[in-house]
This record gives sequence, C-alpha cells and structure tokens, in this order.
Amino acid sequence: MMMKTSFLQILMASTLSVGLCHAQIAEDFKPSSLNQPGQEYPMVNSQGYARFKILAPAADSVRVSLGLGGKGGTKLAKAEDGSWMGTTEGPMDEGFHYYNVKIDGGKFNDPGALNFYGSVRWESGIEIPAKDQDFYALKNVPHGNVQQVLFPSPSTGTSRRAFVYTPPGYEKGKDKYPVLYLQHGWGEDETAWMNQGRANLIMDNLIAEGKIKPFIIVNTYGMTNEVKFGKIREFKIEPFQTVLINELIPYVDANFRTMANKDNRAMAGLSMGGMETKTITLNNPDVFAYYGLLSGGLYAPADIKDKSKVKLIFLSCGSKERPDGVKKATEELKAAGFNAVSYVSEGTAHEFQTWRRSLYQLAPLLFKK
Amino acid sequence: MMMKTSFLQILMASTLSVGLCHAQIAEDFKPSSLNQPGQEYPMVNSQGYARFKILAPAADSVRVSLGLGGKGGTKLAKAEDGSWMGTTEGPMDEGFHYYNVKIDGGKFNDPGALNFYGSVRWESGIEIPAKDQDFYALKNVPHGNVQQVLFPSPSTGTSRRAFVYTPPGYEKGKDKYPVLYLQHGWGEDETAWMNQGRANLIMDNLIAEGKIKPFIIVNTYGMTNEVKFGKIREFKIEPFQTVLINELIPYVDANFRTMANKDNRAMAGLSMGGMETKTITLNNPDVFAYYGLLSGGLYAPADIKDKSKVKLIFLSCGSKERPDGVKKATEELKAAGFNAVSYVSEGTAHEFQTWRRSLYQLAPLLFKK
Repeated sequence: MMMKTSFLQILMASTLSVGLCHAQIAEDFKPSSLNQPGQEYPMVNSQGYARFKILAPAADSVRVSLGLGGKGGTKLAKAEDGSWMGTTEGPMDEGFHYYNVKIDGGKFNDPGALNFYGSVRWESGIEIPAKDQDFYALKNVPHGNVQQVLFPSPSTGTSRRAFVYTPPGYEKGKDKYPVLYLQHGWGEDETAWMNQGRANLIMDNLIAEGKIKPFIIVNTYGMTNEVKFGKIREFKIEPFQTVLINELIPYVDANFRTMANKDNRAMAGLSMGGMETKTITLNNPDVFAYYGLLSGGLYAPADIKDKSKVKLIFLSCGSKERPDGVKKATEELKAAGFNAVSYVSEGTAHEFQTWRRSLYQLAPLLFKK
Repeated sequence: MMMKTSFLQILMASTLSVGLCHAQIAEDFKPSSLNQPGQEYPMVNSQGYARFKILAPAADSVRVSLGLGGKGGTKLAKAEDGSWMGTTEGPMDEGFHYYNVKIDGGKFNDPGALNFYGSVRWESGIEIPAKDQDFYALKNVPHGNVQQVLFPSPSTGTSRRAFVYTPPGYEKGKDKYPVLYLQHGWGEDETAWMNQGRANLIMDNLIAEGKIKPFIIVNTYGMTNEVKFGKIREFKIEPFQTVLINELIPYVDANFRTMANKDNRAMAGLSMGGMETKTITLNNPDVFAYYGLLSGGLYAPADIKDKSKVKLIFLSCGSKERPDGVKKATEELKAAGFNAVSYVSEGTAHEFQTWRRSLYQLAPLLFKK
C-alpha cells in the first residue's frame, strides 16, 4: 500500500529509526541462564535483545536462526578477534526459545548454549528473562524429584521412557496423589516439560506457596511411529493411545502411590500434545476428568457425550496466537454448562513461555472437586 | 631415516597398503546407537571403524576429533553431494567415545549424534559395539528408576543436583538398601554415569540375573568451584567433601530408604572421581566401608589407619592405561591383609567402556560382608 510522504518525513523517519535503534539497545548484556558451564555467550540484555558470538574464523557465513519474525534470523558479522558476532534486530519475546546456527550452509548448535529437544533435533536454547520468571525459578524450597522410568510396552515391543514428577516428601510419605499426564509438542519429546518447561520447579513453587493440592506429573513420548518434518498428517493416534491407556497408566498406578481413578486423573498437552489430549480424553471418558489444551485445539460442547464426567476444561494460548478462538470456545462451553476456563499468555506466541504460564494457571484448578 | 628400497618394493608396498585398506574395511556400516532420532550418520561397522557425514557445503575444512591416537582425528573430504565425509583410519576401541567437529576453525558438535557432558562441554557421542555389550543393554527386565534430586546445600548457598538410582520394586517396597556414591571424572558432571556409563542398565541387568544384592547409586557433581581446562591443580577437595558428607549423604538417608551406616555405604569414582574417593574415604573412615578407584589413583597399605574398618578396596583401569600399577598395588594391599580386588579392562583406555566394565565387576563385590 502506497502512502503520500514527503522527503522530510522519510528522512525524519529513518533518522529517528537509526537513532532509536542505537539509543535503544541497553549495554547490560549478561550470559543467558541456559548457557553451558563457564560460557559467556549467548548473552541477553534487560530489554530482551540476544547477542551471539560464534568462533569459526575461517567460515564464510554464520547466521543464527533466532531473530525478529520473518527476517530469517540474525546474520552475524566477523568481529575483530576473528569470531562472528551479532545482536538480534529487536527484543525477543520473554521466555525460552529454540535456535540453531547456520555455518557455511550446515545446521549446527551454538557451542555456548545448552541443548533442548525440539524440531526433531537437539537445538540450542536461550532464555530471555521474563517479568514473571519468579514462578519457575529454582528457589530454596522443598523440591520434588523427577524420575526417569522405563516401562514395559508390549504393544511397541520395547521399554519406553517416561519422566515422573513426585512432589516434595513423596519418598518418605504414605499419601496417595492424583496424576496429570502432560504431553509435549510435535518435534519435542518427553524431556521437554521438565527441561524447557521447568514443570518440576513450577510445581515445587506452587506447593511451597500452598497454592495447589500436590499431584504427580507424568511425561512420555507422544509418538510411536517415526514422523518426519512436515509429515504430521501421517501421524496416527491409536498406537500412542494404546501405550498411554493400556501400558503407561497401569504401570504408574502399580508403581507409584496414585489415586487411581478418573476423578484424580488429568490429561493436558501443548500443541500436538493438545490434539492428542483432545482425541484421547474424548475416546476415554472414564479415564480422565480434567482436560487441558495448551495452544492445541479446542473442544466444542457437542464433542462431549456425557457432560457429568468432565470436571474441568482448560483452554489456553499466547496472545500472539489465536486468543479469540480460545475465549470463544470457552464461552460456548460455559454456556453449555461445562466448568471451562481460558487463559491467554500476554505477549507470547507458540512457545514455551506460553505453556509454562499455562501450567501455572492450570495446576491450581486441578483435582479440586 | 633413509632405507634402501627398490622401486619394485615401493610399488608393492603401496599396492599392498591400498589393497589391504580397501579389503579391510567391511562395508556393513550402521547408524551409531547414540544418534539423534532418525539420523543415519555417524555410522559404525562391525570392525569398529566410524564413518562421519557432515553437511556444510560452503565450508573449507571439516575435521572430526575422533580417530587413531596421535593423528589429530579424522579429516573429512568433500563428497559428491556437497557434504563432508570420512572414515577413521582404523578401528576404534570398543564402547563410548566423546568427539567434536572442527569446522573452519570453530569447535561444534555433530548434528547427527546425541550430546554427552565431557571436557567441560556437551560433546558428541558415538558408540562402538562391544563384544560384551549385553551387560549394559536395555533389556526386557524390571527397570529401576533414575531420580533427579535437588538437595539443599547451605555450604554452597544453592540447591545442588544429584541422580539417584533406585532398584526395581523400590517404589512400592519397604526394604532398606545400601548406597554407592559414584563419582564422574574431570570435565564431566553428575549426568555421566547414567548417560555415558549406563549405570542404571548395568544394575538392572545384574539384579535381573540375581548376581548382586540390590543397592542404590547416587551421582552428584564433584566440583564446587569452577575449574577451567588445564587448571585441575587448582581444584580443592574440601568444599566438595562438605557437600557430600555433611549435606548429600544426610539428605539421601533422610529421603530414601537407606541402610544408613558405614558397612552399607560405598564410594567409588573414575579418574578425578577416584582421586576424590581416595581422599574422602581416608578422611572419613567411619562413613564408607567399600572403596573403589576406577582409573583414578591407588591406595597403599600405609594410607589406611584402621584396617578393620575397610571391607573392600577395588582398583581398576583399562589395559591401555597402567594395569601393572593397579595389579601391584592390589598385591601389596592383599599382602597387608586387605580384601583388595583388581580388574583390568581388556583393550580399552581411559574411557567409559573401562568404567562400565569396572562397575559391572565392582557391583557384585559390594555389601557382601
């Protein structure tokens, strides 16, 4: 769309923009909290800019995938010491981001950063400090444990892995606990919710503040067939449903002190994990009573045959996703008599900050009735 | 040094060498078992050769750090499809190896391989199938859990992480168990024994075969101050000793069903972890009764003040390390009346295959008296 502008206007705008740009970047960069031990870069500043430094003196081109949307990431330039450096063109959204580094046409990771499984590969991770980061911080409170469990899966002919969060005091106590089955998104795996999502710290903090009834969280891998990038439509839910319903849940109920009934069992998931949650909860109305879709689809009142079996429907997404859809679906569910709650994460997109916040909102609503 | 050689001799030698080379490498390469999901490379063949393929079409030089000793790794060559490929010049030792990829002067990881913490960075890992790999294989047997524990450490002012292996049946049982405190080497961390070492699978398999009395294993980070590469002499044991003896052990005894006494407590470690084990066991004769040094120092009879307190001394290393020292020290301990056992891992060096095998040998000797 063309607009009438005078030369002066253009000049002013461009001066302003350059001026702002330089004035804007606060030189208070600190190492990202997700760096490998002793690594200075990548760094982040108080405004959310990220700065990268990659050593590859003989490379011809180095580009980091993280940057403002639609600009193909951040191109690094050769610095005086032979390394490649660059700063994002603008502030990044608060929270966790995956990224990788293109070097001379190949995709690698930033040697300074820790790795997190996403996009069907171990990617580099960076943390942009968030105003509300306190709720997922590691604090001096009693900590629950995260257990790696290898459970037998006859249907897939192997031992499969799950992570089980048990609340503080579980090991020495005798109480039984409700269970939330919580699924990752496409391209991620069962490590995502504890690593990127910090689900264990969110729970520890909520429990320490007396804001929730303690419960167990179980994460497992939500795919049983190998699905390549872009081929998500080939994904079939049935094999995973068998693993979850017929194998994992009985294993957890047999090996942990759970309250093994529908009213003490929840399922939630992010993105693809939300799609899985929707299908599996609707297929198994006597297994779960609490449903959560985090940036992952919606329920309509007509989807649910027996309203009395559902204790809660939680729908959420980031404000940069489609919050209107989430709000509208929630209103429709409420109007139809469901206990439905929506949550919109301000200023975030289809990323883990949205889902950390969603879990923080969802947890106090679970197992209340 | 010049030698008299005829032209024919040179020709024969070079023909022979080329011929041998091609005849020798069996073209039965398969993806390494430690590859990222869906990744074909790196590959290994039945003889222990490793083959790499790295995509970086515009790079000038790509070199993999893994290769025959003293040759600086394996230089890759540009393949027809624009990727960089290469095969090690000879077979690698059996078991796990760390490696990284030098691209145009920078150090990165192989995007095809999983990462493991070693050399104070997350390195790429590759697994050369071993004749005895069955003892650390994931089998259809009952599996113990590996718990991530965050324990309070007033002396270092933070929550510190430990991994706790609990034997199959622990969750629902009532038995109390002995505990082995098992330390990693320099540049590694508390993830090493379960990830690279497969300690949990070694235990699961030994327990399933009835070869050991089940026990708990605890791994924590063996350094409390940041020590940079090459500065290991600056390392001080006291702060770690405080964490282990005054903080971790009381936490484990308070939160797990342990037999909380000297005769049911062992300490062992690999490399630097062996050095730590030696110092800490000698400083704390009433805390541990079983001592294990895996490629990490030796005890002399004169080191130990009260022989009656020590139930076992286990010393091990790879045959490519200094097995004579291990054997001699063991003989001297035996002659002095100690229950001392040595083990030498055939055909391995200062690497994790030596330590997997050492744990397999050590475990049945623990907590027997």
